[in-house]
Amino acid sequence: MPLIVQKYGGTSVGTVERISEVAKRVLVTKQGGNQVVVVVSAMAGETNKLLALAHQLSEMPDERERDVLLAAGEQVSTALLTLALKSLGERARSFLGHQVRIETDSSYGRARIKSIDSNRILRALKDGEIVVVAGFQGVDEEDNITTLGRGGSDTSAVAIAAALNAEVCEIYTDVEGVFTTDPNICPTAKKLDRIFHEEMIEMASTGARVLQIRSVELAMKFSVPVHIRSSFSEAPGTWLVEEDQAMDSVLVSGVTYDKNEAKITLLKVPDRPGLAAQIFSPIAEANIVVDMIIQNASEDGTTDLTFTVPKADYKKAIALVEKTASVIQAKGVTVDPNIAKVSIVGVGMRTHAGVAAKMFQLLAREGVNIEMISTSEIKISVVIDEKYTELAVRVLHDAFIENQGNL
Amino acid sequence: MPLIVQKYGGTSVGTVERISEVAKRVLVTKQGGNQVVVVVSAMAGETNKLLALAHQLSEMPDERERDVLLAAGEQVSTALLTLALKSLGERARSFLGHQVRIETDSSYGRARIKSIDSNRILRALKDGEIVVVAGFQGVDEEDNITTLGRGGSDTSAVAIAAALNAEVCEIYTDVEGVFTTDPNICPTAKKLDRIFHEEMIEMASTGARVLQIRSVELAMKFSVPVHIRSSFSEAPGTWLVEEDQAMDSVLVSGVTYDKNEAKITLLKVPDRPGLAAQIFSPIAEANIVVDMIIQNASEDGTTDLTFTVPKADYKKAIALVEKTASVIQAKGVTVDPNIAKVSIVGVGMRTHAGVAAKMFQLLAREGVNIEMISTSEIKISVVIDEKYTELAVRVLHDAFIENQGNL
Repeated sequence: MPLIVQKYGGTSVGTVERISEVAKRVLVTKQGGNQVVVVVSAMAGETNKLLALAHQLSEMPDERERDVLLAAGEQVSTALLTLALKSLGERARSFLGHQVRIETDSSYGRARIKSIDSNRILRALKDGEIVVVAGFQGVDEEDNITTLGRGGSDTSAVAIAAALNAEVCEIYTDVEGVFTTDPNICPTAKKLDRIFHEEMIEMASTGARVLQIRSVELAMKFSVPVHIRSSFSEAPGTWLVEEDQAMDSVLVSGVTYDKNEAKITLLKVPDRPGLAAQIFSPIAEANIVVDMIIQNASEDGTTDLTFTVPKADYKKAIALVEKTASVIQAKGVTVDPNIAKVSIVGVGMRTHAGVAAKMFQLLAREGVNIEMISTSEIKISVVIDEKYTELAVRVLHDAFIENQGNL
Repeated sequence: MPLIVQKYGGTSVGTVERISEVAKRVLVTKQGGNQVVVVVSAMAGETNKLLALAHQLSEMPDERERDVLLAAGEQVSTALLTLALKSLGERARSFLGHQVRIETDSSYGRARIKSIDSNRILRALKDGEIVVVAGFQGVDEEDNITTLGRGGSDTSAVAIAAALNAEVCEIYTDVEGVFTTDPNICPTAKKLDRIFHEEMIEMASTGARVLQIRSVELAMKFSVPVHIRSSFSEAPGTWLVEEDQAMDSVLVSGVTYDKNEAKITLLKVPDRPGLAAQIFSPIAEANIVVDMIIQNASEDGTTDLTFTVPKADYKKAIALVEKTASVIQAKGVTVDPNIAKVSIVGVGMRTHAGVAAKMFQLLAREGVNIEMISTSEIKISVVIDEKYTELAVRVLHDAFIENQGNL
């Protein structure tokens, strides 16, 4: 019997009514002759509500305890969905992270899954039960509760699908799939029928919220077929597929943006070897993910060093950087939380030159100043003033996707 | 170093501000040279909120899943209190039921603690940490989450105090201790400085909400000193003490009431041996606790059988009873959820006759009809129409406690 893993995001289980709808959809899948494992996120808003409580008590809540707190959100939605399935007369059973031993490392708030004990899930499936697993959470070796970071339920789902060798991992969300850009900003945005793993990773890492990056990496590594689709319609969504030379590839698949970073600059640092290590080691130790880094050497033997960190972490980062700054005799530290990163992503860039130049021209024409640039083989990101975000996205989408032929 | 277990109820941790206050009190205890283990309930209202969600999905929610759901409440308050302690600069660590292996039987919703693995708690205490343990929850042999029933955190606290051989188990609540009756109904109610275990058990089982009965039984069995006091004041509260013949004992220590039961009557059941077993076995199997039972034989060879069950369970009980009723050819089944049980409790009753008669007279004088009577060595309970509850309590308190000399 085929085994399907379905993951429902926070909006899909945001109310009791929606949970009932999800239960019906799960039931249909089961009645279609499948074994079903469901992975759920916390009800929409719950995680933020819990975080807000923590922040009332502490500016930088202890990470172990914050994870204990947040894991309660998925515990609630998992139990409620199981109750909804049972109220439909179905046999169903919930499991929390510690009960199916979703073992992770001990990086609270961004833990990585090391292993899953699939026996208990398989036993329940064999008993004819629908299995509901709490997403987002795991336990480390010592049974401490860990969480996988924003969007971590996607990763839970793909990891479980991999462990169970599932037919497909369906990621249900409140949009119809992966779009060429945010339809709220750009009405001409189109749903993609499929997207390559590499593109999805770049899009996710540059702001597309549809999937946690780690889940795409896992899907790629373990060849888990992933189908991203809407929990509010029956329409097919977007399939994550392996890159295939034979397929036509477009130049740019998507335009993304991210307003969740802050820019930190160390001014006039005396330039010497080992500088970057000195600055970034304490930040890495604090588990803060640095995204872009730029260093501009100037003539006077000093350098300005700019980098971006998640907005949520920037106060912590500043505290660490200011400590380092005095040690390395920097002239000062500035922060700008009002930035946005706008990116274009597409495997076609590998074989086309001039895409970056075109992008810079388009932005210059609109008077948008580029503060930082970062590129990969299949992506170009620029950091700009936050207020130009929507304008930049529309201009780039129009030029690269809507009117691709005119390039 | 003395070890103190403190339990804080839902009202004491009802808001972030109150959690901060609790943290300060815990800190003072630690600074007084004690090791401290704190047991917390869910924030006031949370358990009911979660239950309401479950009831939106199912009239009789599956018990395993309901426990998973409810356990989330204590998880949140436990994490928040630990965060509050950390924000005061204290070392602290939270533990959930499965992490310190509070192992229970598998009676969801009313599980009984079988064992606690105190090693992890002791290790944390030795490391100088304040330990915060989630009350109300445990796991069974198979790691399924269980809960201990309303007030279960009291039992968690006493069980932990017993396992750790604590100096004292302090139960912090929103009242100053155990009162002779409900001060909201009877303004002359007085706080008791001490109360015997047996009396506390009777008072709790007849409606005094201050402690879960099971916790008193454990305190008695393991000789755990328990001090019930207010989290909003420094005043001493009520000590639970072992009965001591040398101490003066009053006739009646408390007047209690309980509006949370419903009365079910089987009409004109053909009277024959094995009848009660036939009726009550399915109810027991459904884990419904029957409180009072009365059987009135009549001349025609049939009998009316009346009993009370918790209001929360009465629909379930009715369904079972109606099934049995047709089998045993009862004439019908009636239910009355609008009843109250009013009781007087005191070890002094053991040596005094006439207390029951006096109680019945007092109620008769007010026109209160007695529907059922149940007595123990140190307690008399009557079931009356719910609307007379407050009147009955005041009359009994006045006569037996306020004006005891005039009896």
